[in-house]
Amino acid sequence: MTRPPRSLLASIDQPADLKRLPREQLPELAEELRSEIVRVCSVAGGHLASSLGAVELTVALHYLFDTRHDRIVWDVGHQTYGHKILTGRKDRIDTIRRAGGLAGFTATSESEHDALTVGHASTSLAAALGMALARDARGHDYEVLAVIGDGALTGGMALAALNQIGHVKPRMTIVLNDNEMSISENVGGINHYMRTLQVQPWFQRAEDRGKAALSSVWRPLADVSSRAMKATRRFFDPASANPFHAMGVRYVGPIDGHDVEQLLYYLEKIRHLPGPTMLHIVTRKGKGYKVAESDPITWHGASSFDPAKPVAPGKSYTWANAFGDAADQLARADDRVWVITPAMREGSGLVEYSKRHPDRYVDVGIAEDVAVTVGAGLALRGEKPIVAIYSTFLQRGFDQVIHDVALESLDVVFAIDRAGLVGGDGATHQGVYDLAYLRSVPNVSVGMPKDAVEMRAMLKEAMRLGGPKAVRWPRGGVAPAPEAPVEEWPAIEWGSWEVLKEGSEVWLLGIGPTLGYALEAAGDDPRVGVINARFVKPLDRDLLLAKAKGAEALVTVEDHTVVGGLGSAVLEALAEAGVQVPVRRLGIPDVTVPHGDPKAQHEELGYGPKAIARVLNELGVGVAPKLLTR
Amino acid sequence: MTRPPRSLLASIDQPADLKRLPREQLPELAEELRSEIVRVCSVAGGHLASSLGAVELTVALHYLFDTRHDRIVWDVGHQTYGHKILTGRKDRIDTIRRAGGLAGFTATSESEHDALTVGHASTSLAAALGMALARDARGHDYEVLAVIGDGALTGGMALAALNQIGHVKPRMTIVLNDNEMSISENVGGINHYMRTLQVQPWFQRAEDRGKAALSSVWRPLADVSSRAMKATRRFFDPASANPFHAMGVRYVGPIDGHDVEQLLYYLEKIRHLPGPTMLHIVTRKGKGYKVAESDPITWHGASSFDPAKPVAPGKSYTWANAFGDAADQLARADDRVWVITPAMREGSGLVEYSKRHPDRYVDVGIAEDVAVTVGAGLALRGEKPIVAIYSTFLQRGFDQVIHDVALESLDVVFAIDRAGLVGGDGATHQGVYDLAYLRSVPNVSVGMPKDAVEMRAMLKEAMRLGGPKAVRWPRGGVAPAPEAPVEEWPAIEWGSWEVLKEGSEVWLLGIGPTLGYALEAAGDDPRVGVINARFVKPLDRDLLLAKAKGAEALVTVEDHTVVGGLGSAVLEALAEAGVQVPVRRLGIPDVTVPHGDPKAQHEELGYGPKAIARVLNELGVGVAPKLLTR
Repeated sequence: MTRPPRSLLASIDQPADLKRLPREQLPELAEELRSEIVRVCSVAGGHLASSLGAVELTVALHYLFDTRHDRIVWDVGHQTYGHKILTGRKDRIDTIRRAGGLAGFTATSESEHDALTVGHASTSLAAALGMALARDARGHDYEVLAVIGDGALTGGMALAALNQIGHVKPRMTIVLNDNEMSISENVGGINHYMRTLQVQPWFQRAEDRGKAALSSVWRPLADVSSRAMKATRRFFDPASANPFHAMGVRYVGPIDGHDVEQLLYYLEKIRHLPGPTMLHIVTRKGKGYKVAESDPITWHGASSFDPAKPVAPGKSYTWANAFGDAADQLARADDRVWVITPAMREGSGLVEYSKRHPDRYVDVGIAEDVAVTVGAGLALRGEKPIVAIYSTFLQRGFDQVIHDVALESLDVVFAIDRAGLVGGDGATHQGVYDLAYLRSVPNVSVGMPKDAVEMRAMLKEAMRLGGPKAVRWPRGGVAPAPEAPVEEWPAIEWGSWEVLKEGSEVWLLGIGPTLGYALEAAGDDPRVGVINARFVKPLDRDLLLAKAKGAEALVTVEDHTVVGGLGSAVLEALAEAGVQVPVRRLGIPDVTVPHGDPKAQHEELGYGPKAIARVLNELGVGVAPKLLTR
Repeated sequence: MTRPPRSLLASIDQPADLKRLPREQLPELAEELRSEIVRVCSVAGGHLASSLGAVELTVALHYLFDTRHDRIVWDVGHQTYGHKILTGRKDRIDTIRRAGGLAGFTATSESEHDALTVGHASTSLAAALGMALARDARGHDYEVLAVIGDGALTGGMALAALNQIGHVKPRMTIVLNDNEMSISENVGGINHYMRTLQVQPWFQRAEDRGKAALSSVWRPLADVSSRAMKATRRFFDPASANPFHAMGVRYVGPIDGHDVEQLLYYLEKIRHLPGPTMLHIVTRKGKGYKVAESDPITWHGASSFDPAKPVAPGKSYTWANAFGDAADQLARADDRVWVITPAMREGSGLVEYSKRHPDRYVDVGIAEDVAVTVGAGLALRGEKPIVAIYSTFLQRGFDQVIHDVALESLDVVFAIDRAGLVGGDGATHQGVYDLAYLRSVPNVSVGMPKDAVEMRAMLKEAMRLGGPKAVRWPRGGVAPAPEAPVEEWPAIEWGSWEVLKEGSEVWLLGIGPTLGYALEAAGDDPRVGVINARFVKPLDRDLLLAKAKGAEALVTVEDHTVVGGLGSAVLEALAEAGVQVPVRRLGIPDVTVPHGDPKAQHEELGYGPKAIARVLNELGVGVAPKLLTR
């Protein structure tokens, strides 16, 4: 498609160009930015709605601040497509989230204009606090700002950092970008409170009167001192004390976050105030793109589409769907089954479940630690909770897995999605550590199914056995399992492996998506066997040792770091049994992996089908030549 | 020493006995309980101050509630010596924190009266939320209470759970036990807010008039409905909206937490209210024991003492002291050095440092995730932060280590105390997973010094090299390093091992405190070598492979789980190099380890000197007979 005609944006390469625009042209620039973001997302996919909701804020911030020096910490970093376009990355914006292209979030290694490498929510306030402390210690005077959404603010880490900021009181601006919707439905008392603020009569009146009126109210504060502000704050916040203020952070707002002039006005005033100030702005996620605005959840992370004919991105059946269907059946079969999500209803395939079993569905907001421990509380009362969580986010509940669940071996099942490389979300979201960190925790065991049928069998057996059980699967599509009630699901022995292909000399031990690669690389060589090492803890020691004893070599293949993963578990088991056999461990080496196409990355990192074939070739077996010359 | 004469307490074995007492005798019982706790701590050591501050609350709760059914979730669980004495554990209370004895915290496996197994702060609200959800789903009517200190409430997990409770609104009581002091000095805006509440004129007036007056004020609420309460809340909380209320939790207080009658009065009213209610009580940590009251930090976790002649528990030089001294020198030598602690100033040896370098000392409160990310923020601005943290608490910042520090390889040093088994604190506090979980993170490396001199060398080199570097050491004593400025500290090559004793057939690879055991077990057998494997990542591959190639066997010895620890790192390195040599991995097997004497536990778990000697004996070397018959 052709780009719509643009005049202002075309003239902007760097924020300095933007600063030269007359103030009254900024709303127009924001609109152009909005169109450009829709176009980019139509080509590259991405976090459309968040970025659309933040264009006026982005323009206002770059007009007032100099991000070569000032530090704007965007929480999560998914709302920064506009920021990237305005900070020298316009020409590469179409590469966003693609191999070798721009990251989908901010990254300090990508641009001097990015203050933080990020992707997980709720980190901005702590990071900004550190930056403000450093600034003040050096006697510098650059500005530190954090831009945080209402959803991310309900994360414990953000609340604790806010509490700390209210204590330390460094000069900084916190823009609370209140779009009334985190990724899932918003939850939490503070959110309710923010909703209350918005319907305060004074706010509505102010809205009716428009920004001029609001400004006139604010006018007495033009040369605000902290004391003056206190005296008049009552008008702005008739609840007199709000939770932010109680924490020690000056509170201003809420104001219309789509009104560039209002944003400029308040940001200009606030920047000179001592101590921390929160500016509460109200925006609409997906603002300006009708379809995204009316269905921002679907459009939160959109695949590519045609902006002229918007239909929701096509949805094929995914592992998340398979889990949602399995959870539904499990909950029907046993009324003690619960599913807990940390604000990932859609991503974890739980939309249907949440409607069918609302009484046994808990969305705790962006608070993974709370999700795990609510599970512990339920399990202590005889319930059967499933904590549905992405691999990368379970890192945030790691202590709770150990301390709250594993120590007393409580009946909590961890349904781990996005295990392995995740594609466009990149380095911050790779689910490639969970085998290592879960495996080291006593009482916890971990399985990875090869397909949806095996996933159901594992979940069923995990619930039956009790204790902390993790079942993990990758991002992406999977063939649906036949619809059937739980009692008809096949059984699986927890800790058992499965021989997928017999062999005589070399055994490939794979899990999940690497099994297809292993089978492809093994081809029809009768010397090469393939084992579905579907339980990483406990391993199937009997099968492992039986195959290891006569083998020339074992090759483990995992979409996970090789430091502490499946391969290491195999080495440990062999060492304990005193079995000496060469073991090659294929998987992610000890490096971070950026965004890209997972299949291509698997190959590059040495565990795609060709890479496995090469290793087999080195071992003198396999169908390597055929695969390698293809 | 003899027990002071007691009458009431002697008659109480179970809470049912307490409930038979006339209400007016409860204050007397509380005083007896207080004396008994002082006596217990004089014999066994323990968390004296916290338990002393909670005796009236404990008595009141057991008078009103039935902990066979009702669930009282004590946050951290360190304030429960009185609870244990009143719930059938009176006769075993002297065994607390000792091998085979009662746990120092609550533990569901210890008593039906304990609602949660705990030890880390800030989990109570999430766990109680889970329990309340389970109760309501089953249509049961037992009570759910959480008792949380003001320090623990500043933990993000607690704030996020409170926010969630305010949203879900289950019937539950949250007792905010505000003792104006968490383990370190209290920090955070909410804390400041709570201090403000206490000096509100209305509260002081009410205090002056005593409880009768307060009751008369409260009387209209005797048959409170939520609506009536809302209408009158203004009196109780003249700030009109407080942060707890803003989060959706009804707020009552503050009241005198040492007045049993007041506690009974309010708890009785609150228990029948719908939804969640927070009762804010003000107590004094160490109340009733003069010395502890005036110096509660020293007495927070006290060693045994003579209650008749209280002097602060003797302090020998510890690893924590060695770190504090090193940090002081590092900060003198480089003004970019900072130390960050999550409320562990005393435990991490930072009292002196915090006085000498107040501008480069940050206590973020009980918020390990915030501690790590504040470090990231500082590092991004060119500072050299050291995050001082216990191994067990770093589990709470694991995602932040990966996401905020490791991805961009920021210059953050992790100074990890309490690595290994920790003794009396037991299962919840064992620092035995950090090698496994840190090792799997790209860019992170980990060392463990054998003494204070090596610790300094490692810290110095870590700062010099940059990047995320962890240095860990155990709890307990160490010989001080000679006082010297940083430039005189010896250098160490990061990643280098050290041969402590030459050998020819079998090599013992130890770290930290296990090196003494290894040397003892090796004795003077020239066939057995001992290596200080002081860097677990990166390993000293050259030295490892050189020694492995001619060896009959390698034996790794670590005070850490063998799943993913040093031994696994050695197996990985050998497999990568294609070196086949038998490896025995000694360390903690895949089980949880309760409180006890660490040295005895090391032996029992198979890596004390005798255990090592036995393994050497099996391998046909070592001085096993001598050591084994001793």
